Amino acid sequence: MTAFKTDATSTTNSSPAPGSKERVKQFMKQLQDNICNRLEQLDGASTFKEDLWEREEGGGGRSRIMRDGAVFEQAGVGFSEVWGDQLPPSILAQRPEAEGHSFFVTGTSMVLHPRSPYIPTVHLNYRYFEAGPVWWFGGGADLTPYYPFAEDAAHFHRTLKGACDAHHSEYYPVFKRWCDEYFYLKHRQETRGVGGIFFDYQHGTGGLYRGHDKNGAAAAYSNQLGEIEPRRWEDIFALAQECGNAFLPAYVPIVERRKGMEYGERERNFQLYRRGRYVEFNLVYDRGTIFGLQTNGRTESILMSLPPLVRWEYGYKPEPNTPEADLYETFLKPQDWANWTPATSENI
Amino acid sequence: MTAFKTDATSTTNSSPAPGSKERVKQFMKQLQDNICNRLEQLDGASTFKEDLWEREEGGGGRSRIMRDGAVFEQAGVGFSEVWGDQLPPSILAQRPEAEGHSFFVTGTSMVLHPRSPYIPTVHLNYRYFEAGPVWWFGGGADLTPYYPFAEDAAHFHRTLKGACDAHHSEYYPVFKRWCDEYFYLKHRQETRGVGGIFFDYQHGTGGLYRGHDKNGAAAAYSNQLGEIEPRRWEDIFALAQECGNAFLPAYVPIVERRKGMEYGERERNFQLYRRGRYVEFNLVYDRGTIFGLQTNGRTESILMSLPPLVRWEYGYKPEPNTPEADLYETFLKPQDWANWTPATSENI
Repeated sequence: MTAFKTDATSTTNSSPAPGSKERVKQFMKQLQDNICNRLEQLDGASTFKEDLWEREEGGGGRSRIMRDGAVFEQAGVGFSEVWGDQLPPSILAQRPEAEGHSFFVTGTSMVLHPRSPYIPTVHLNYRYFEAGPVWWFGGGADLTPYYPFAEDAAHFHRTLKGACDAHHSEYYPVFKRWCDEYFYLKHRQETRGVGGIFFDYQHGTGGLYRGHDKNGAAAAYSNQLGEIEPRRWEDIFALAQECGNAFLPAYVPIVERRKGMEYGERERNFQLYRRGRYVEFNLVYDRGTIFGLQTNGRTESILMSLPPLVRWEYGYKPEPNTPEADLYETFLKPQDWANWTPATSENI
Repeated sequence: MTAFKTDATSTTNSSPAPGSKERVKQFMKQLQDNICNRLEQLDGASTFKEDLWEREEGGGGRSRIMRDGAVFEQAGVGFSEVWGDQLPPSILAQRPEAEGHSFFVTGTSMVLHPRSPYIPTVHLNYRYFEAGPVWWFGGGADLTPYYPFAEDAAHFHRTLKGACDAHHSEYYPVFKRWCDEYFYLKHRQETRGVGGIFFDYQHGTGGLYRGHDKNGAAAAYSNQLGEIEPRRWEDIFALAQECGNAFLPAYVPIVERRKGMEYGERERNFQLYRRGRYVEFNLVYDRGTIFGLQTNGRTESILMSLPPLVRWEYGYKPEPNTPEADLYETFLKPQDWANWTPATSENI
């Protein structure tokens, strides 16, 4: 159990640090830069094109997209900062204290659609909100494999767990469950993939778990986080930075391991079919997408997460005893990936 | 101006006719049969496969899908009847009088995805609700062309207008505007296509226009419909039947006119790209999709409307002075298609 970093002043201080908006914004831009640089290096064939945009009601961003790469069929990495008079209803419902205050939001978000069906699709988003007296961090990263490689799922989870554990050992168990709950397609009864970490509304005191489903497993775990409160702004910013910076070491080794593997039409067809689930999730459930569309965000940037090519097939079911069936049976249900070992593989 | 069919008893009678549920259900099944038979004939190569399904909480349906046809890359035509204890919140918000009553819904819905980019995608849905003292009919049909043929849009609208006009000359103007408003992608600022007709909550008295946007153009027109109230159940059922039966004569001639036209990769790519808008509409806005997912409907049947193959492309814009640009400039904005003539073509 890692000790939680606290000091005498932290018990009463839940205000943002001086220059909070600027500091978080600089981090978000740096995270975008770091990710884009490494992905270009990894791809070797294509590069990012950048669109700078402004939002009429306040703010703007830089959307970067790489297309037709050797590794990445499409990679979208966005930075944005947005401000305005009033948060949209979907957010105010969760944080009523922000009502009547102007708001500031900055964040980095990313979705990668690799060409090879053996390389998982991956999503990252970190964001920071300030609205009058309230502020919070949110974000996470989750992995969506098309083919079932347990060691990839385990590596991704362990790396993110390491980042969380450096701050408190109770973070990962809560954020991992929160991710499993959030990235869940109710109408399919499937997780979006093998998950990762997800958190929202992380601030000084209270509301550690204020998600869409307060009766879920993560809510039951939030009491454990309650014991480490109050937390300072600096502590939570440091946590968000560590999680954001853990993305490349969590994902890049998986790409390097899989990118040389040959595949055929069967695997490609399955990938295109499974990409349909990504579209369904993003358009039906995703909070970031809904927030963007509600705040008159830049549509092309918001929907940059959608895959370049997708199939739907009525009534598809994988054939028994195939890798595709294994994906459904094991990888589209929550698993304790951080504790996976080759020996336990038969049990999950 | 067509006279509205009414009689002395109609002014007090807004109850359903005896056997209402069974009669509407039989009509909905017959409509599905008629459409499937004609589409098979038109396609000539593929046939519909049927899945019968039951809903645990009450009801069931028959989903029919044709795939890999000569004309239709995918055609889904569904019939369903569903009952339960309580309508879902999204419907109760529109019809609070139904609160606390069990409900019955039956309907036919259809989406056709032709192979040729010159043949428009088309959607039809007619439905009937009863919940305690309240009942209503809803539905419509709308056309989504990929390439701009004004005479096709005009033919589709005129045929549906003829069906409406047989009941009252004020129906078409309202239902046409309602369709333009309903099938609108706010985040793209585009209509889904050239529209057609759409109505909801059609019952004996009041509520002629109770859509999602009471400030829209159709609302302004609903006063004109108010003058023809009260209407008998029989009158509205007859209207729904006439509109449903008008689908084949509205659409089949367009298919016959376009199916022989050759196309290339450019047209196919544009079609796949534009199909993305269909996905965006159905998953983000469509009332039928949301109703289905909220009532624990059969996911495969609900999402049978999604296209078999779709592209997204960040930042796509059509080149000026191309047919693709013409689609955006003229066909994705509301137009008075019923009054189109070759001579007016320059003005729209």
